[in-house]
Amino acid sequence: MSSMWGNKIKISLFGESHGAGIGVVMDGLPSGELIDLDRADIHMKRRSPGFQPGATSRREGDSVRVLSGIYNGKTTGTPLCAVIENTDTRSGDYSKTALLPRPGHADLTGMARYEGSNDPRGGGHFSGRLTAPLTFAGAVAMQILERRGIIVRAHIFSIGTLEDTPYDPMKLPEDCSERSMPVLSEGQALKMRELIETLRNDRDSIGGVVECMVIGFPAGLGRPIFDNIESRIASILFGIPAVKGVEFGRGFKVAQVRGSQNNDSPFMTEEGIRLRSNHAGGVEGGISNGMPILLRCAFKPTPSIGKPQHTVNLETMSDDTVEITGRHDSCIVPRAVPVVEAAVAVALLDILEEG
Amino acid sequence: MSSMWGNKIKISLFGESHGAGIGVVMDGLPSGELIDLDRADIHMKRRSPGFQPGATSRREGDSVRVLSGIYNGKTTGTPLCAVIENTDTRSGDYSKTALLPRPGHADLTGMARYEGSNDPRGGGHFSGRLTAPLTFAGAVAMQILERRGIIVRAHIFSIGTLEDTPYDPMKLPEDCSERSMPVLSEGQALKMRELIETLRNDRDSIGGVVECMVIGFPAGLGRPIFDNIESRIASILFGIPAVKGVEFGRGFKVAQVRGSQNNDSPFMTEEGIRLRSNHAGGVEGGISNGMPILLRCAFKPTPSIGKPQHTVNLETMSDDTVEITGRHDSCIVPRAVPVVEAAVAVALLDILEEG
Amino acid sequence: MSSMWGNKIKISLFGESHGAGIGVVMDGLPSGELIDLDRADIHMKRRSPGFQPGATSRREGDSVRVLSGIYNGKTTGTPLCAVIENTDTRSGDYSKTALLPRPGHADLTGMARYEGSNDPRGGGHFSGRLTAPLTFAGAVAMQILERRGIIVRAHIFSIGTLEDTPYDPMKLPEDCSERSMPVLSEGQALKMRELIETLRNDRDSIGGVVECMVIGFPAGLGRPIFDNIESRIASILFGIPAVKGVEFGRGFKVAQVRGSQNNDSPFMTEEGIRLRSNHAGGVEGGISNGMPILLRCAFKPTPSIGKPQHTVNLETMSDDTVEITGRHDSCIVPRAVPVVEAAVAVALLDILEEG
Amino acid sequence: MSSMWGNKIKISLFGESHGAGIGVVMDGLPSGELIDLDRADIHMKRRSPGFQPGATSRREGDSVRVLSGIYNGKTTGTPLCAVIENTDTRSGDYSKTALLPRPGHADLTGMARYEGSNDPRGGGHFSGRLTAPLTFAGAVAMQILERRGIIVRAHIFSIGTLEDTPYDPMKLPEDCSERSMPVLSEGQALKMRELIETLRNDRDSIGGVVECMVIGFPAGLGRPIFDNIESRIASILFGIPAVKGVEFGRGFKVAQVRGSQNNDSPFMTEEGIRLRSNHAGGVEGGISNGMPILLRCAFKPTPSIGKPQHTVNLETMSDDTVEITGRHDSCIVPRAVPVVEAAVAVALLDILEEG
Repeated sequence: MSSMWGNKIKISLFGESHGAGIGVVMDGLPSGELIDLDRADIHMKRRSPGFQPGATSRREGDSVRVLSGIYNGKTTGTPLCAVIENTDTRSGDYSKTALLPRPGHADLTGMARYEGSNDPRGGGHFSGRLTAPLTFAGAVAMQILERRGIIVRAHIFSIGTLEDTPYDPMKLPEDCSERSMPVLSEGQALKMRELIETLRNDRDSIGGVVECMVIGFPAGLGRPIFDNIESRIASILFGIPAVKGVEFGRGFKVAQVRGSQNNDSPFMTEEGIRLRSNHAGGVEGGISNGMPILLRCAFKPTPSIGKPQHTVNLETMSDDTVEITGRHDSCIVPRAVPVVEAAVAVALLDILEEG
Repeated sequence: MSSMWGNKIKISLFGESHGAGIGVVMDGLPSGELIDLDRADIHMKRRSPGFQPGATSRREGDSVRVLSGIYNGKTTGTPLCAVIENTDTRSGDYSKTALLPRPGHADLTGMARYEGSNDPRGGGHFSGRLTAPLTFAGAVAMQILERRGIIVRAHIFSIGTLEDTPYDPMKLPEDCSERSMPVLSEGQALKMRELIETLRNDRDSIGGVVECMVIGFPAGLGRPIFDNIESRIASILFGIPAVKGVEFGRGFKVAQVRGSQNNDSPFMTEEGIRLRSNHAGGVEGGISNGMPILLRCAFKPTPSIGKPQHTVNLETMSDDTVEITGRHDSCIVPRAVPVVEAAVAVALLDILEEG
Repeated sequence: MSSMWGNKIKISLFGESHGAGIGVVMDGLPSGELIDLDRADIHMKRRSPGFQPGATSRREGDSVRVLSGIYNGKTTGTPLCAVIENTDTRSGDYSKTALLPRPGHADLTGMARYEGSNDPRGGGHFSGRLTAPLTFAGAVAMQILERRGIIVRAHIFSIGTLEDTPYDPMKLPEDCSERSMPVLSEGQALKMRELIETLRNDRDSIGGVVECMVIGFPAGLGRPIFDNIESRIASILFGIPAVKGVEFGRGFKVAQVRGSQNNDSPFMTEEGIRLRSNHAGGVEGGISNGMPILLRCAFKPTPSIGKPQHTVNLETMSDDTVEITGRHDSCIVPRAVPVVEAAVAVALLDILEEG
Repeated sequence: MSSMWGNKIKISLFGESHGAGIGVVMDGLPSGELIDLDRADIHMKRRSPGFQPGATSRREGDSVRVLSGIYNGKTTGTPLCAVIENTDTRSGDYSKTALLPRPGHADLTGMARYEGSNDPRGGGHFSGRLTAPLTFAGAVAMQILERRGIIVRAHIFSIGTLEDTPYDPMKLPEDCSERSMPVLSEGQALKMRELIETLRNDRDSIGGVVECMVIGFPAGLGRPIFDNIESRIASILFGIPAVKGVEFGRGFKVAQVRGSQNNDSPFMTEEGIRLRSNHAGGVEGGISNGMPILLRCAFKPTPSIGKPQHTVNLETMSDDTVEITGRHDSCIVPRAVPVVEAAVAVALLDILEEG
């Protein structure tokens, strides 16, 4: 297994960056769910380059064609397959890849794994472009979740050392999905744009952190030990290229606090039991506690940079230098925001449907 | 599914803290592997309370009984079942749990999940005690990995704000498995002991971070997208109670650096291609690159603290206070070190055997 | 994976015939279900040798010990582990097995699979004895199914050429679970006993067919294509040693009839739509149609026979002869009836819980 | 899960009979395997209507488009997606289906399962047309198996009461894949054609049995208990619409013989240990024994018949009659032969790759 994920709702991603097409099969969706493909398209657009500062000039034109699983606008309950044709694929740009593996990419590991048979063009199946069908799957999942009162939102938590206002762990954050720089603080948006622009001019790149919050997820879902909410969400998030860390609630800062400072204590309200704080990020013992689910994941700087880099030449088997031409994102974090939302939505719909 | 994990090597954990017994089934092990149960027992002991400062006084006496899967000292290839009887289970200690849910525990979420039918004694199936059979499974996996030249080591990266010397990402770290405080820096060990003692006297607890490194794992294993090495390891690590964050290589710090600083560039040596640095932590595109695999995971402070805490009374349905009696770890991080090693070993053996 | 089965309710079998113990982990059971272990024991007894004519003299004394997953008599919802200790294991009986592989057994294939490391005593993990924990798991599943109005019954359809009265595919069959020879026709029971006795005296064995019917399974469960009811039931039934064929409804006879004779046509009743016949055995398009689920599975004659048989000697690597000593079932079909019921019950509970 | 199958090689089928397209994703294929798409097309043609007597006039034109997973003619090792566009879809033919459920079809069960939201046109996802992408997947698998010396062949074992010469269980059967009626006996082919023609004129249909044999599959593959070769093959075969029975080796006839007649006894040859007979059909204890794998599966008569049939009218909720117009196969068995080969090939490649 490789590119499949899920227990009850299984998604299967396929495609190579410069092949005929990429796509996703979603198996196990509930039937009778209205899916607004235009809304899904809007979600997709947030991920596409061009929508964001610091994006590549390649026009993906990710128009999704649904081959199955939707009838009269509703899910049939049988597998939904969505395909995105690859149109603008200038393979020439990537012709040197086979000889000069790009540092920080999966060029060398892909060759090791597939013994030289994998498609090297544009990263092939390793390409960040594979997040397009994942984002579509998430856009479908989000519509179903919303109908059950569950909202998934994400924003840029940080780019480099520039931090947005963090989400309040106790309440629904402002929606910043329509901003080209999806942050809460307009002031930081400006600084982030400048930083990205600086890096672009410098033919370099920068990493960042995406924060995601989910409101309305019912208490009592998930399971202890391995099939818990955190394991499930982490396993899908680490499936997004460039993610190097995932944390829930207070995350790594939890290591520095005391139990008396960290335990979320329950109290009685007219609507039932609530918690005074949300340091756990909505999950205790692997099971949702009814508080907002809060998580962050770290993205490394995109390895595609224009600066000359040391590498090896696989023909001459000697040291060499590579310069990656074409325009590339100097920061993928803005585009990663809808991808994180999508991945989290797929995971939570799976957990919800599993019951 | 809940307490099962793995693709090729499947482990299935069972048991409740105060039930008749706990254990693990390991299915899919290679056959003919010599397993030294005494060595496994030594690994188990590192996890048991009493071996470590800051541990509870409860003597688990985790003597493992292997019911199947080992014949003449070797794995048969058919399922290995190991059982640990629960002996010293003073259920009375936990009698109030059903009425006064402990903050930071899974008492409330467990009730929500299982509608009041789960075993509440000592956390039941949610108990940290379930890491004992996981640790045994890891001890078995480590012996098989070692025979293939793969070494898994972990240490305390930090407790509170006290940090041990971090692992050098490029080379095999010193073995500190025989120290009661498994750290590289003896000086920091002393300070950590003092901190833990202070917290114990204060009836409080503290969190920490465990760092783990794997040497000798071959390049070219794992897969892109969802079934990658990072997803697999993260999903098993988040199955350890109290883990709130997992990161690889540079982890969250990756967000603050430039691509030109972060890309690990290849160069030619007489033994083949090597990388100049290991910021990726041994995994690129989800696939091992032959460098040491490096990761860290954050543990929250144990929620079992002696201080009085706010909670609700489920009988009177009003606010109340709970004091957790008995002795509890004021810091589980030292004991968590062999558990992290075990979980990582199980994950890597699964990936290795899957090929 | 090997000895695990299930989507939502996962069972994991472990153990060797002459090892320390055998057992099962059931993961994913609904919580709060009363389980009467005495009733489960009665179901187990129907499988045990001695209860039936033609059985071996070995007293298994399959007393099941539940280690986890039941609290106050009810399922906790967390994994249930049940262990059966192996007590009367005269390994000496089987000492020649390693040298003289028994025809019709898994001795040679087991050696090929596990390269000589598997436990050869009594068939090891391949032993029919592994159906004991499966039968226990089914006995648990049957109690949960019954509470939902679902009854699983089986009988001996045939032994050799002796046939019992077949089930009427349209209605609940008589319960013959308390008969030592579980058939509907008392006359045929006598003849079957005689046949079995003749074969025992002849140091030979005979095969047979078990028929199973399920009443009350709701319409609309299961799925099209691979995860359909027939695939799921067949996959668990072929997990019972000696099963060589599985068929539903009319089964192989369906090949000889016309569509106009075979289609089950719907008609309207006051209670809703019903079907005039049940040639499909309750499953159409992989999904239950509300009619009784009807199936049969064929058991080969037990390969353990007392007659001298040709084989090879693995020490001398030349042709040789083997005589299997000890008493063995000359017909396992009577004992197989509760095992088939158990396997079908586990499969249907899994499908039911999956929704 | 629903339309996915496999452990190591996972296939995911999608599509509806009259939707935009149908297809398959194959995940986990070995990399670097040359795939001759023309040969795959030839295999597909054997399944397509028109190639066979008794076939529908609908021209499917199943031209397969590979979107991913093949690069420079070889498998990449990453997911292979193949799509078949639906071209000639006269939905009008099926417009009454929603009101007059066809006996023997999944119309009623599909409505129950998906609460009326599934695509009813032409059977939707339940359509036999979904065997087209399965057949393609099998054609790919067969090419990889052949390169490892493994040959999969099938023929019509019987149609109605007309039987072809059965395969000799000990040796490679004649290849009859290029015959429009894939049987060994030319005389029976003529009679089968006549029978099918008679039934067509009679607006009725007839069932049959397909027999499949595999030569060259190595000994020692598969596993005991649930994940055995028979369970795996049976579970995929029951995924083919209209299959109602699966048997291995002697199959149901095993019930009528004695152990001394049925046990396959080993003897020594210069090439190693061989078996004198192959009653087990190549599988003992769930594991291959090196003999040919032999199996049969029963197909019910296609439920689509032209004769008027009783049904219910879902609008008036009263009894009614349905006549299925259009031309339909009066016998699907000839077309089922390459589908059975395909399903068996997919299953065996999965087992082989799993190791």
